[in-house]
Amino acid sequence: MSKTAIYAKYIYYDGKIVEDSYLLINDEKVEKVVKEIPENQKYDYKIIERSNSAIFPGFINTHTHLPMVYFRGLADDLPLMEWLQKYIWPAENRWLSDEFVYDATLLAACELIKSGTICANDMYFYSDSIAQALINAGVKGVLGAGVLDFPTKFAKNPDEYLDKAKLLIEKYRDNDLINIAICPHAPYTVSPENYKKCIAFAERYGLVIHTHLAETEWEVNEIYNKYGKTPLKLMDEVGMLDTKSIFAHMVHLTDEEIEVAGKKKVNISHCLESNFKLASGFARVKELLDKGANVSIGTDGAASNNDLDILVEASVVTKFHKAYSGDATALDAKTALDMLTINAAKGLYLENTGQIKEGNFADFIIVNLDKVHLQPLYNPVSQLIYAAKSSDITDVFINGKHIMENRKILTIDEEEVLDKAKYWGKKISGVK
Amino acid sequence: MSKTAIYAKYIYYDGKIVEDSYLLINDEKVEKVVKEIPENQKYDYKIIERSNSAIFPGFINTHTHLPMVYFRGLADDLPLMEWLQKYIWPAENRWLSDEFVYDATLLAACELIKSGTICANDMYFYSDSIAQALINAGVKGVLGAGVLDFPTKFAKNPDEYLDKAKLLIEKYRDNDLINIAICPHAPYTVSPENYKKCIAFAERYGLVIHTHLAETEWEVNEIYNKYGKTPLKLMDEVGMLDTKSIFAHMVHLTDEEIEVAGKKKVNISHCLESNFKLASGFARVKELLDKGANVSIGTDGAASNNDLDILVEASVVTKFHKAYSGDATALDAKTALDMLTINAAKGLYLENTGQIKEGNFADFIIVNLDKVHLQPLYNPVSQLIYAAKSSDITDVFINGKHIMENRKILTIDEEEVLDKAKYWGKKISGVK
Repeated sequence: MSKTAIYAKYIYYDGKIVEDSYLLINDEKVEKVVKEIPENQKYDYKIIERSNSAIFPGFINTHTHLPMVYFRGLADDLPLMEWLQKYIWPAENRWLSDEFVYDATLLAACELIKSGTICANDMYFYSDSIAQALINAGVKGVLGAGVLDFPTKFAKNPDEYLDKAKLLIEKYRDNDLINIAICPHAPYTVSPENYKKCIAFAERYGLVIHTHLAETEWEVNEIYNKYGKTPLKLMDEVGMLDTKSIFAHMVHLTDEEIEVAGKKKVNISHCLESNFKLASGFARVKELLDKGANVSIGTDGAASNNDLDILVEASVVTKFHKAYSGDATALDAKTALDMLTINAAKGLYLENTGQIKEGNFADFIIVNLDKVHLQPLYNPVSQLIYAAKSSDITDVFINGKHIMENRKILTIDEEEVLDKAKYWGKKISGVK
Repeated sequence: MSKTAIYAKYIYYDGKIVEDSYLLINDEKVEKVVKEIPENQKYDYKIIERSNSAIFPGFINTHTHLPMVYFRGLADDLPLMEWLQKYIWPAENRWLSDEFVYDATLLAACELIKSGTICANDMYFYSDSIAQALINAGVKGVLGAGVLDFPTKFAKNPDEYLDKAKLLIEKYRDNDLINIAICPHAPYTVSPENYKKCIAFAERYGLVIHTHLAETEWEVNEIYNKYGKTPLKLMDEVGMLDTKSIFAHMVHLTDEEIEVAGKKKVNISHCLESNFKLASGFARVKELLDKGANVSIGTDGAASNNDLDILVEASVVTKFHKAYSGDATALDAKTALDMLTINAAKGLYLENTGQIKEGNFADFIIVNLDKVHLQPLYNPVSQLIYAAKSSDITDVFINGKHIMENRKILTIDEEEVLDKAKYWGKKISGVK
């Protein structure tokens, strides 16, 4: 058993700021917050002093495609279909392999850690290699086992995709960092029957289903032309709103769909910067929150964002939706922090996660407040969301394990990861 | 005479990327870029090695209120008028002084330097103290001498405001970092007659006029009710579009006004994050650029943004306007870089500024590319705008002077500046 006590200026404990206190960690769990450690217990704890810092819960990125970090900046400022067809798909076809995905995910894991992210909800191929990289980095992942109507080199049909998922589930059943999700890609690539198959499968194993929905106008038209209804209505009919599920994007919704999403407390991963950059449109997040939907934040892949920095994403989310809703009081700093933490944990059905409180997993970050853009400081939560940068995060703990200390990642060799990135970058440049 | 040669992987020289070269600096000016320094000249140069870095022109922030960094986070998530009337104005009335403004501007200068900004176009009070702080920090400023219809503690009437401006102009005439601008606040606080007075005065001294315009719907209605015309039309009639001028915000414009702004190549400072956060609305930047307006970027004050980080602002600007215009090819990375540099220099009528090229002032930044979010790297300009963070900027040169080296500011004592910020913060907290 290892016990750690961290002294900080501010600790965001159970949703409130506590000042000048110690956060006590017992192995992988949070014990409590105290003003003083009793004299007779002082030697039980490894004491870490961060008196000019604030401790916040670690962030959770609820929609991403981690290995795409190797394609960041390969093609920018292009329409979606040209971007996909001329650059991303050919590059994926040419390069994807277990080795590529493992190496790329290690790079992504470094970026996650350095921006305070303790868990990512991923959707990609070669999830076994993604899991291995995240485990080595010490970062939590909810990893999607993909399902499509059509055959790929991974499987011939939906049953085979789900058989592959079974292998992942068995392999990572007892792993305390990895959860498996089922990922039917989107309603334009997966039929209603196959969504139903995914639901039956996921419910048998108690898994979350993670899918893209209502990202573009094109998609909405496509689904309407095919099924005579909107994407969310279709999802409701197949049962996706009555099972453990999370929907990425949800940009193009009617008033009625927003009502339904609220009433059914639908879990949404809002990917604002990706929706900006690919010109997909603007999700109506204030209305969704007001109606009762559970909205968290995703960066989407680094090829369309172009980073995995969820803190800057949250800052843009809260600022943008004030103007978009015409209400400067909308999406305040605390709401943004909730979106990054408890809403995200809830959306991914992660227990004892998303808040620093007794019995929860000790997943937290330490933010150095001695920065010229963080002083004077009147409100720690405002300062975190509106002014702090990921580079102010000095330390990251995941399941009580010290993953980054004073900006140095302790679990993996960052230089080696950078060298690998450059090596792959040279190879990939050839196909441009 | 001091000569410096900086070796870098990429140099953005005269609008193009040059690889594996030396940038030669002669005193305060750029000399040229060379692949090799001739053997017989090697000892003339101080050689700086940054082989894993890229050199870009330094950024120019075209609308801000620097001393407001001391009010950052004092009041967030509030409607504009409540924010102003309950928090910002009382705090300003209570605390503003030459000492406050000097100390606050030093803090702001640190933030400018650390985010690669070599020049700020400021509008505030106590400009003499702002000038002193910027000179000590080694940062360029275009400092606004304020003009209002009504009396304040600074002056009784517009003639007196302009008399104060005269003192600033004389004091800083030969200073190579400071320019003075005339700042009639906005058309709802300055009458058409007084705008004309400002124009006559500015033209006599060859100065730029910097004003707020069309920031909120309230303003547009106010001006329409008072003068029967839109703010830009009013500006056109008083002659503001036919003199050296730059307009901050320009959020609420009609189609006709956008035509006029384009035709007259109006200089605009786009303050997207401030417009987001105060729920002011969305400027139609793509159309303004397409029609011929000269758009640059401002952060506005840190109390409404909440930072002076113009790099992250540019990243949000380019991404947002793709979705807002419905065109993923709009405002590409190069356009964003132009907005941060040459457009800004042009908008402020700064000569030999905004680009790294022979004879220009040596105002540039060095970006460390050995970061997990910057490798692999396919396109340096894309990577700068879409993925780099201000914390990747290691070095800043202004007028050939080394202002920041490996993140350490060489001109002022950052720790002392932070201590001052905390001291003022404690005092200001009392009024909350």
